[in-house]
Amino acid sequence: MNLPPHQVQLTDDGRLKHFLTTEGLSKALLTEILDTADSFISTQERAVKKVPLLRGKTVVNLFFENSTRTRSTFELAAKRLSADILNLDISKSATSKGETLMDTLWNLEAMYSDMFVVRHSDSGAAHFIAEHVTPNVAIINAGDGRHAHPTQAMLDMLTIRRHKNSIAGKVVAIVGDILHSRVARSQIHALRTLGAAEVRVIGPGTLLPTDIEAIGAKPFYRMEDGLKDCDVVIMLRLQKERMQNALLPSEGEFFKLYGLTEQKLALAKPDAIVMHPGPINRGVEIESAVADGNQSLILNQVGYGIAVRMAVMAMAMSGQQQSAIESEEV
Amino acid sequence: MNLPPHQVQLTDDGRLKHFLTTEGLSKALLTEILDTADSFISTQERAVKKVPLLRGKTVVNLFFENSTRTRSTFELAAKRLSADILNLDISKSATSKGETLMDTLWNLEAMYSDMFVVRHSDSGAAHFIAEHVTPNVAIINAGDGRHAHPTQAMLDMLTIRRHKNSIAGKVVAIVGDILHSRVARSQIHALRTLGAAEVRVIGPGTLLPTDIEAIGAKPFYRMEDGLKDCDVVIMLRLQKERMQNALLPSEGEFFKLYGLTEQKLALAKPDAIVMHPGPINRGVEIESAVADGNQSLILNQVGYGIAVRMAVMAMAMSGQQQSAIESEEV
Amino acid sequence: MNLPPHQVQLTDDGRLKHFLTTEGLSKALLTEILDTADSFISTQERAVKKVPLLRGKTVVNLFFENSTRTRSTFELAAKRLSADILNLDISKSATSKGETLMDTLWNLEAMYSDMFVVRHSDSGAAHFIAEHVTPNVAIINAGDGRHAHPTQAMLDMLTIRRHKNSIAGKVVAIVGDILHSRVARSQIHALRTLGAAEVRVIGPGTLLPTDIEAIGAKPFYRMEDGLKDCDVVIMLRLQKERMQNALLPSEGEFFKLYGLTEQKLALAKPDAIVMHPGPINRGVEIESAVADGNQSLILNQVGYGIAVRMAVMAMAMSGQQQSAIESEEV
Repeated sequence: MNLPPHQVQLTDDGRLKHFLTTEGLSKALLTEILDTADSFISTQERAVKKVPLLRGKTVVNLFFENSTRTRSTFELAAKRLSADILNLDISKSATSKGETLMDTLWNLEAMYSDMFVVRHSDSGAAHFIAEHVTPNVAIINAGDGRHAHPTQAMLDMLTIRRHKNSIAGKVVAIVGDILHSRVARSQIHALRTLGAAEVRVIGPGTLLPTDIEAIGAKPFYRMEDGLKDCDVVIMLRLQKERMQNALLPSEGEFFKLYGLTEQKLALAKPDAIVMHPGPINRGVEIESAVADGNQSLILNQVGYGIAVRMAVMAMAMSGQQQSAIESEEV
Repeated sequence: MNLPPHQVQLTDDGRLKHFLTTEGLSKALLTEILDTADSFISTQERAVKKVPLLRGKTVVNLFFENSTRTRSTFELAAKRLSADILNLDISKSATSKGETLMDTLWNLEAMYSDMFVVRHSDSGAAHFIAEHVTPNVAIINAGDGRHAHPTQAMLDMLTIRRHKNSIAGKVVAIVGDILHSRVARSQIHALRTLGAAEVRVIGPGTLLPTDIEAIGAKPFYRMEDGLKDCDVVIMLRLQKERMQNALLPSEGEFFKLYGLTEQKLALAKPDAIVMHPGPINRGVEIESAVADGNQSLILNQVGYGIAVRMAVMAMAMSGQQQSAIESEEV
Repeated sequence: MNLPPHQVQLTDDGRLKHFLTTEGLSKALLTEILDTADSFISTQERAVKKVPLLRGKTVVNLFFENSTRTRSTFELAAKRLSADILNLDISKSATSKGETLMDTLWNLEAMYSDMFVVRHSDSGAAHFIAEHVTPNVAIINAGDGRHAHPTQAMLDMLTIRRHKNSIAGKVVAIVGDILHSRVARSQIHALRTLGAAEVRVIGPGTLLPTDIEAIGAKPFYRMEDGLKDCDVVIMLRLQKERMQNALLPSEGEFFKLYGLTEQKLALAKPDAIVMHPGPINRGVEIESAVADGNQSLILNQVGYGIAVRMAVMAMAMSGQQQSAIESEEV
């Protein structure tokens, strides 16, 4: 039986036990994540920024695809929850000894691991592991192929809520390579569920998915049209690799058309906020005056990201424990 | 003065202060290790799986030979004992700056390190360090050349004791490349001391040591003969490197003769258990139906391995502290 | 405004908030570092060698230049202060994705990091970061280009004070490649401030800076002249890379002229102590009989190094917190 991710990630009574995708999650649950994250921003602003929620738990960072930044934020989130963390450079380990990936995962589970943070270049990898490989280990999706990057999306939601008071009723534009972006997909689902008035995607036609309207976003091909009256502008990182296979114009051309400048930003509402998942390519998707300007929340997002990761880790662990108790009672 | 390892690893009153080899250790001491490990299985099954036994101690993982899996289990064992752990990729560090290995070890000792977990391709390396280099640091042998891998052997003993009730009186077969296996040597010593009825080794003549009977094992060249009436079947990992220098037949040939299939397993007792130190080569030394079957304890071994490592780390640290107090009193 | 490092590293009321250089620090402050370090030697000699001073703080090891040994001592120092530590191999991370160094540092700051331990091949890097990039993160200089290595200098001061009772009135010789040594510069400043009677530098003319007398050291070109009546002999590590560009004679020639042998050491006071920052090149700058002899304190220095690092980390963190409270009150 192949369940959709939003069912795989929930306990029977609807609590989080994995965190795989924002798609299909209820407004109440997304709001609970944001509320929990808010509380972890407070704990991190204290002199002692650790809480004992995951004390004695083992979290394994399973990064099949390298990402120092994302790995570091999950590592810090785990440590601030008082968990023990094992960082595995999975590409160099046992799989190179001829062991299958499933065997590697089963072995890690057998080490009494409680949670895997999974980054993988294949869409659906985290879902597959959660449903078919190690269902009793809480799986946190740290980015899977083009599919989803749900903690990134939720930190963006937290940023909007904290700085625009609410997501409901806001006009949000996402700019850049939507087609290849796992971040954009996760954002659109979350924005729709949380009641954004309009979700726009802006980019060249080659980089907008053909089904974009079906998932609730409105396509724009020109910044001039798409940015008009926006409350929130989310720039995506340009994957320079893409340009080599001719999907993108040159860096200079891209910047001219879709790079966020002060001039283009002036088309949005005067109090619009600017976001970016980082790391930023200055002068490619965003100019420094905007990245470092007073509408930019790019650095705030980083700290919120740790809080959101702490939130979903704490909630999923709690849901797993609840599941374990219930299955013993059965 | 060169003491045999079993004396080097003991305090004057016979307690463990290093863990170098199972050879020469008494039945009482091996049993104490297993009893202690049993208690750590319990602590790991709790919601908070940490105990404070090594709090404030510094454990250094000194892996001169790469082994992600073994290193990870020692790292988790140390963390669950609340120790601080330093992972050193020793091949890349100071020794490459022209410093001698002895200087590197003395420096680590001078950092107030309490324990070194040593993996080395030279037989006797851990023993040498314990006797001649840093005797006041507890040395745990995580595999030295072809000589010993005592924590692997003890986790195998724990597996047998937990699933066959006792080691005494059991018929145990070890299958594969005995000649190059540090695991097999450590197992044979432990099995003999703990009263196994018979220890058999099964493999091609080129891969059985000529002195095997002297250390208490009985050689068999055919699975059909060796597996008969066994209580326990331990498969060794086939080191594929060996095949290149013609010591082994092809993978296919090896599997046909010595690979564990359901058909061959049927020759052993009906309730025989199957073990493997991992990582497994499916279809080379074992077929999937057996590896994943209900006689297989391969994944249980992994968890027991952490418990055994916690046990010898806690016992050796306690023995070292006792030694230190006694030498101050002299 | 570019402040000199000794002002950047102090709070308004003269407490440490970064640790960038020994230059310009008062005798009282250097003495406070040594006294604090003394107390951490005691805590490390206890069964539980952790203290909770930095509990809940995040320390990031930012090594732009590889140094396993120095990194390990900072890692252990942080862990023994109960901090959480993030080791970043900065050369492999986001900067390689086109992100600027400043963006990387701002991002790490935004993760609620409290302290960066910075090693960099550019002189002034730590100072620049402290003044211009992330002034609210405590910066500890773990070596910057040819400029300074202040924790190494302070551990040397601690060694002299503990084994010669005091630095005041002592004759200290520093031997080797002074020109390229960040250690020597930091030592000379500290020795002068702490009242050494005479600081001598000994080496070939090509390796002594021309301005050496201006910073308070007396140059000698022959060991026979420079070692006479010394209380302390500090050997520098010979950077073998230097010899390739003809700044140095051959290793054999260097050893003959400047290598410390028992014979040359006999020229110093009979109770002179011998120090070396490690890792040592046996038979190049020092012979084994001296390195392992009873006047050598080379291994003691290692443990003192952790205590000194704990001291400056604890003091700088406390100063940063004081600064933060004061700026809120303004």
